[in-house]
Amino acid sequence: MVCIAPEAVLWFGEDMSAVPLRNNKAAASSVRSVTVLGATGSIGDSTMDLLRASPERYRVEALTANGNVEALAKLAKEFSARFVAIADTSKLAELKAALAGTSTECGAGESAVIEAGARPADWVMAAVSGAAGLKPALAAVDRGAHVALANKECLVCAGDFFMQRAAKAGACILPADSEHNALFQALASGNRDELVRVIITASGGPFRTWKPADIEQATLEQALKHPNWSMGQKITIDSASMMNKGLEVIEASYLFALSPDEIDVLVHPQSIIHGMVEFSDRSVMAQLGAPDMRTPIAHCLGWPDRIKGPAAKLDLAKIGQLTFEAPDFERFPGLRLAFDSLRTGKGATTVYNAANEVAVAAFIAGKIRFGAIARLVEATLDDWIRGGNQAPLTSADDAISVDHVARNRAAALLPQIALKAS
Amino acid sequence: MVCIAPEAVLWFGEDMSAVPLRNNKAAASSVRSVTVLGATGSIGDSTMDLLRASPERYRVEALTANGNVEALAKLAKEFSARFVAIADTSKLAELKAALAGTSTECGAGESAVIEAGARPADWVMAAVSGAAGLKPALAAVDRGAHVALANKECLVCAGDFFMQRAAKAGACILPADSEHNALFQALASGNRDELVRVIITASGGPFRTWKPADIEQATLEQALKHPNWSMGQKITIDSASMMNKGLEVIEASYLFALSPDEIDVLVHPQSIIHGMVEFSDRSVMAQLGAPDMRTPIAHCLGWPDRIKGPAAKLDLAKIGQLTFEAPDFERFPGLRLAFDSLRTGKGATTVYNAANEVAVAAFIAGKIRFGAIARLVEATLDDWIRGGNQAPLTSADDAISVDHVARNRAAALLPQIALKAS
Repeated sequence: MVCIAPEAVLWFGEDMSAVPLRNNKAAASSVRSVTVLGATGSIGDSTMDLLRASPERYRVEALTANGNVEALAKLAKEFSARFVAIADTSKLAELKAALAGTSTECGAGESAVIEAGARPADWVMAAVSGAAGLKPALAAVDRGAHVALANKECLVCAGDFFMQRAAKAGACILPADSEHNALFQALASGNRDELVRVIITASGGPFRTWKPADIEQATLEQALKHPNWSMGQKITIDSASMMNKGLEVIEASYLFALSPDEIDVLVHPQSIIHGMVEFSDRSVMAQLGAPDMRTPIAHCLGWPDRIKGPAAKLDLAKIGQLTFEAPDFERFPGLRLAFDSLRTGKGATTVYNAANEVAVAAFIAGKIRFGAIARLVEATLDDWIRGGNQAPLTSADDAISVDHVARNRAAALLPQIALKAS
Repeated sequence: MVCIAPEAVLWFGEDMSAVPLRNNKAAASSVRSVTVLGATGSIGDSTMDLLRASPERYRVEALTANGNVEALAKLAKEFSARFVAIADTSKLAELKAALAGTSTECGAGESAVIEAGARPADWVMAAVSGAAGLKPALAAVDRGAHVALANKECLVCAGDFFMQRAAKAGACILPADSEHNALFQALASGNRDELVRVIITASGGPFRTWKPADIEQATLEQALKHPNWSMGQKITIDSASMMNKGLEVIEASYLFALSPDEIDVLVHPQSIIHGMVEFSDRSVMAQLGAPDMRTPIAHCLGWPDRIKGPAAKLDLAKIGQLTFEAPDFERFPGLRLAFDSLRTGKGATTVYNAANEVAVAAFIAGKIRFGAIARLVEATLDDWIRGGNQAPLTSADDAISVDHVARNRAAALLPQIALKAS
């Protein structure tokens, strides 16, 4: 055996023929049980596509959907799921009818979605969006599963204890979004005490080059024009305000136990380098790829091995150039507020997220200007800090409670923010 | 314990405090014995600087130099080296005089430099340049040391058996040049059967944007203007002809057991991304850093841990942009010939290197045009293939013999290449 690199130790046999590091053939022949929480959304779609590509490798334990009975039943039949849950209880009868004659068990409501997370599966995709995704993900975490995390709230609102619960249960948290997945891959190149900083890249959104006065007055239509990624309305607006990058900074801090000072944001409009890690010897390890969510999802599904991904091959010669800029905390105060909330801790990141959700809804409804989104978040954070009672969150109910308090405060502050000019 | 990534398993204790993966404190307190073959050259200088920075971690076993007695003796005293060897036998008396009264043993000539490689040291920097570096590096390899490889000939001329010898002895080959070190770091992110291709970046050299007729007529002065790296005359000319990148393709093929089809070259004038690896899930892992040889050398010295490196922090916002182009095999036929020689095998890469050395010397001497460098290499390869007798190389003497034959053939072909217009 020649030792080229730690992981390459077994690359070569005595005759220099390539032999795999891990016993992949054994791994390929063993079937992995999989649950997808939020199977009918965009992340769920991509996950089901990957499962579809290698039916011999996966067995579906449970699938859940919010309200799309038709799509859920179709997937349940195709993959012979053992259990399906629909969040909307009014749709249970319809679901049962669609799956009549199959051996798939059906459930409905919050408890059924939590049950889906709790049922024994080796690997769980946690892609239920919003606060509703927290308890089902925790159910999977608490039994020590591999949990691919696509739900933001688990970390932003509950990061204080989510990672502790994972640590306690020995669960593997696999980040499914492109930036954290990139950091996750790059972090494996060194030890904790060799890390200098992580660098999260940001497209900069549609207002990257805009003047402050134009950002202040930006319309909904303008905010919805994202340069690289095709995403939902809320996240696209968050991208325009860079609040989305702020949320990612918070997620990275909890996920990888990083202090705010160990996290840098770098504007990179092409979204090809998804994340970087600088180590003590000044090596910067980066993960690159076409902007395609199927790559990080495939990485999570294959981990600790790698499976075949369906994304386009990266052609840097064709792309031609990658550009970089320092983020502008003045024009995008939402990014600064994310670092502030991390430093405050004890629920402040939950408040940051809740106030932003209220603010974005108000912007979509035409009640506030685009520039007022960050002002409402800042005012809510200030108000919440002045109110006292900050304490580390220790349960999902704690997190949900702070979330509710913050939403109410943001709603109460909304009229005065709406009236105030920039 | 929470499992974030394979290497991050031990990042967090039960209380979420960060704990290192490997027992670095133990590693730091154990002293590593080190030998530097070629201690007074540029790579040697950087290596000695790193050793100087952490004297408590390293003990110097042996140092060698070609002819610079003064510098060698100074280093021997500073680091209390147990053995020093000077290649130039006429300088032995001078060396002994300089080290009189110390406990350092002295030797001279080829055998003494080989002895330096053979003496027990945990880690050896193989930075003797040219064919003279092969046997000392093999001496270190054969006793199963960690060998940081900065000598090109070990792989280009002798890759056929160099890696087999390393495999047999269980030696760790740590590539010290920036491109291969980058690949080495990125390759650790996956298994052999998950690898799609490696991408070696190239600055493109000073003639990157030149027209074929201008490259043909390029002067020595023009060829010596490298945009990013400050290097010796030969390697700078190789960079201008992209023969240097061809040599790196050959090295990568032997070092990592890659077929020519698994190696891509990408022109990247800023030399910030040093190498990339594409895996099956379409993740591309890259190593980036300022163009500073001290980073890969520090990586080799620290491996499998990382030590502190003295290079400047990478500031991509300040750099602003990274650009990429496909390499042009028409204007830079030397690059194409490298792939051809790899496909031919059985000593062809030794011929490629030898003919190029003869051609570059002829260009420096004003005997041939710049454009004739690649023509002489191609003619020599063709002539050698027509001559038959190709067989896998199995020893240093085999490699040295093919090298001599090729140099003679190249010299014999030189007059007609010199006369022929492009």
